[in-house]
Amino acid sequence: MQGGRYFLTTFAAEINEKSAVIARMAKEIKELTPRSENYSQWYQDLVTKADLAENSAVRGCMVIKPYGYAIWEKMQAELDKRFKETGHVNAYFPLFIPKSYLSREADHVEGFAKECAVVTHYRLKNSPDGSGVVVDPEAKLEEELIVRPTSETIIWSTYKNWIQSYRDLPVLCNQWANVVRWEMRTRLFLRTAEFLWQEGHTAHATREEAVAEAEKMLEVYGDFAEKVLAVPVIRGVKSETERFAGAVDTYTIEALMQDGKALQSGTSHFLGQNFAKAFDVYFLNKEGQRELVWATSWGVSTRLMGALIMSHSDDNGLVLPPSLAPIQVVIVPIYKTEEHLATIRERVEPLIKDLRARGISVKLDDNDNKKPGWKFAEYELKGIPVRLALGARDLEQGTVEVARRDTLTKETVAFEGIADHIESLLQSIQKNIYDKALAFREASTRTVDTYEEFKTEIEKGGFILAHWDGTPETEARIKEETKATIRCIPLGGDPTPGVCMVTGKPSKQRVLFARAY
Amino acid sequence: MQGGRYFLTTFAAEINEKSAVIARMAKEIKELTPRSENYSQWYQDLVTKADLAENSAVRGCMVIKPYGYAIWEKMQAELDKRFKETGHVNAYFPLFIPKSYLSREADHVEGFAKECAVVTHYRLKNSPDGSGVVVDPEAKLEEELIVRPTSETIIWSTYKNWIQSYRDLPVLCNQWANVVRWEMRTRLFLRTAEFLWQEGHTAHATREEAVAEAEKMLEVYGDFAEKVLAVPVIRGVKSETERFAGAVDTYTIEALMQDGKALQSGTSHFLGQNFAKAFDVYFLNKEGQRELVWATSWGVSTRLMGALIMSHSDDNGLVLPPSLAPIQVVIVPIYKTEEHLATIRERVEPLIKDLRARGISVKLDDNDNKKPGWKFAEYELKGIPVRLALGARDLEQGTVEVARRDTLTKETVAFEGIADHIESLLQSIQKNIYDKALAFREASTRTVDTYEEFKTEIEKGGFILAHWDGTPETEARIKEETKATIRCIPLGGDPTPGVCMVTGKPSKQRVLFARAY
Repeated sequence: MQGGRYFLTTFAAEINEKSAVIARMAKEIKELTPRSENYSQWYQDLVTKADLAENSAVRGCMVIKPYGYAIWEKMQAELDKRFKETGHVNAYFPLFIPKSYLSREADHVEGFAKECAVVTHYRLKNSPDGSGVVVDPEAKLEEELIVRPTSETIIWSTYKNWIQSYRDLPVLCNQWANVVRWEMRTRLFLRTAEFLWQEGHTAHATREEAVAEAEKMLEVYGDFAEKVLAVPVIRGVKSETERFAGAVDTYTIEALMQDGKALQSGTSHFLGQNFAKAFDVYFLNKEGQRELVWATSWGVSTRLMGALIMSHSDDNGLVLPPSLAPIQVVIVPIYKTEEHLATIRERVEPLIKDLRARGISVKLDDNDNKKPGWKFAEYELKGIPVRLALGARDLEQGTVEVARRDTLTKETVAFEGIADHIESLLQSIQKNIYDKALAFREASTRTVDTYEEFKTEIEKGGFILAHWDGTPETEARIKEETKATIRCIPLGGDPTPGVCMVTGKPSKQRVLFARAY
Repeated sequence: MQGGRYFLTTFAAEINEKSAVIARMAKEIKELTPRSENYSQWYQDLVTKADLAENSAVRGCMVIKPYGYAIWEKMQAELDKRFKETGHVNAYFPLFIPKSYLSREADHVEGFAKECAVVTHYRLKNSPDGSGVVVDPEAKLEEELIVRPTSETIIWSTYKNWIQSYRDLPVLCNQWANVVRWEMRTRLFLRTAEFLWQEGHTAHATREEAVAEAEKMLEVYGDFAEKVLAVPVIRGVKSETERFAGAVDTYTIEALMQDGKALQSGTSHFLGQNFAKAFDVYFLNKEGQRELVWATSWGVSTRLMGALIMSHSDDNGLVLPPSLAPIQVVIVPIYKTEEHLATIRERVEPLIKDLRARGISVKLDDNDNKKPGWKFAEYELKGIPVRLALGARDLEQGTVEVARRDTLTKETVAFEGIADHIESLLQSIQKNIYDKALAFREASTRTVDTYEEFKTEIEKGGFILAHWDGTPETEARIKEETKATIRCIPLGGDPTPGVCMVTGKPSKQRVLFARAY
């Protein structure tokens, strides 16, 4: 008996120890590095632990995991609807661009040649030693193909055949595609060698129409960012230095992340006649004269996932605006017996139906293998906007516990009429997330007049509005000395002129500076 | 005056001549080579003239034009819904596959190595003579990357990290993506170097579950083909020779085109443990034992566009099933004056609203630059299922002309209650298109018993059911001598055994032969 008792004690100790190990592991698995400690590590932890994306075996290329992809799909659906409402149609153009095409527009090739994936061969063969496969030197392409970093060149070579007369204009195409830019330092969603995006490419008869299109699409992006992502953005024009390679003007939406760094979240380019010139795209106008076609292009990418994450999330995990949450409401039953669970199921079933009929996505998590506490942490990590918990007391008293992810607050409310409550709660959450991000940005945006002040302020992060003399030289000096770039010349900003904080030369208006991703 | 009159006459003659030229051009532009004359040319004409797709500047890569892409988007939406209803989620995996990964599964690399695009460098630089850009020899990749021809290898290398225990199974992912197979002879939609597809990749704890998944997805494809594409298909299993590279079993749906050739329209593979072995993917079962994971993969591609076109269309153009028509109903007003047009608009506006409320897509074509006759031809070419025409007499008499694209018939019916009529007409059209294709396939399917008879019959096109001894040798001989391949061993076909038509050896059941795309 002595031995038996000893054994049992040891056994119990062992179990305790194991539980402790498991608890520690669970903590490690789920816990994120706090933002205050290391923002960059927090981001990396969150993206991987919330199952959004992970690095793949291919340098710089990510795997977008199902939960991350579900959020991207919701973004796509919202954007696609807006593109179609503004008269655009989708099409698909080749992944590959002949090397000579990329070279046709001088600025364009300058901008993209240094970071592109080049296909040189079209066949592998067995290696002579039988150990695997090698590139077949006899299957060399006559002309190398570039994996598209963006599609202006291949698309304008196509538009040449589509456009003859003013009657063929405008052409308003969008494409959902993958693109590759061989970035050396990559970060999940923010900067990856391959990423997913949409690229609109439009062709117009006049400069005015093309400029109006570029501005319209900037506003589509701005509205999408604010209404759907709940991310407030500054709309503006890029300085010459920061312009898209091949553009006459680049419009941008700029968002401010929680760590005080800016994130360019979408761009719309007025391309002038640069690509029409490069690919000989002329049209006969109403007067029968031959004219070059005017162009725009505009795009947003999976980088928006980064903007979403870094605008709202916290040390407990993701905070998703209801508009993008794959699951908007999760119901966690708190029960001891199977009968008990059955009663809860019976209670919530009509509610689930009701919510779904309102277009609200709901999940009932009655998984028996996980404790409620584990589930609560998991759904916080995943950013589910509303969590309902129902236990024995709730059943008796006709109540339910409602937890908000954005404020991490809970309240016990009457079960009766709960669907209406949830519907309006989701709207408040959407608004609150946006308001919070806006308040943060406003508190982080300062106006400075001297370069000394600028140098101090830029260290604190955030947006700085300052006067600049408009020259690339001054812009380069500021970047060199402070790592800050001109995010944009704000549209509709304060138009008061002044003098450049660095050179004292005249400035037409304050421009927006920040350190940026 | 004499001179003036002469001038006028000449001028009129010139105008007449120009009209004739324009009419001829219009005819040329719109007219298709008749199917009876050259089926292959008819197909090429139709794909390009109906604005579905065209060849691009990149060898073998197509541009999918907006109208073609709109049809593909409808296919995607229907398929995606069915995948989600059967428990699958979408994700995204890298475009590139390290060369060594492709080699891990012996059959797989054997099947794909000979036709793949290989990325060897990651940078271009200015050419020494300043004439353009060249590949930078210093930017050579340590290991070449293959542009994915299919994603089993990159996905199973990822699943290795996702799967530890039976609790992690099943994994049910799908991906919408572009893939590249360096085909030497390409045809729009049917065989292109780059194409769009979806590829499902699932991981399971048992062989039975994986086989059931592969069969379930075959049925999803079969149901989609028949209900949505209105294309009847034979479900079956591929012979060993025709199996996917790396599969244990390949299930297929086979359709018969109007020219008597078969088109493989979708495949679902039971991959056994081949990829789990190649990438060391094990799981701990409920008993705590380590086991290899079981796999399936399944895919359909833009090739379905070819199946759709070659199943239903005619010498006047596309015939689209209403389920996939981007525009289901077009209204063409026949008018002489602006007031007249205004009256017609007023009449049809409530109808348009009503139809849209029923989920029917409608276009009112009041373009003033085109004559009704031109519009009729255009919408026939584009395959719009129902065309309404309204003129002065219709307004007076309260009628409307309704034309069906599938039967090319017209009837004049009361305008009152026309929405109900159109709704049921669209259903009849969907059914009629399917029934017609099914009747054609049934009339083109024969049973033969001798190889002599087979050789005669195969020349006529269509499906032939014949006995085969089950050996790759006999299969190869038949292919060599008749160009016919075994499309599949039909599931649920006549199970009566017999003797091989070639060798006289025993045969378990008749198999399906055809010449194929």
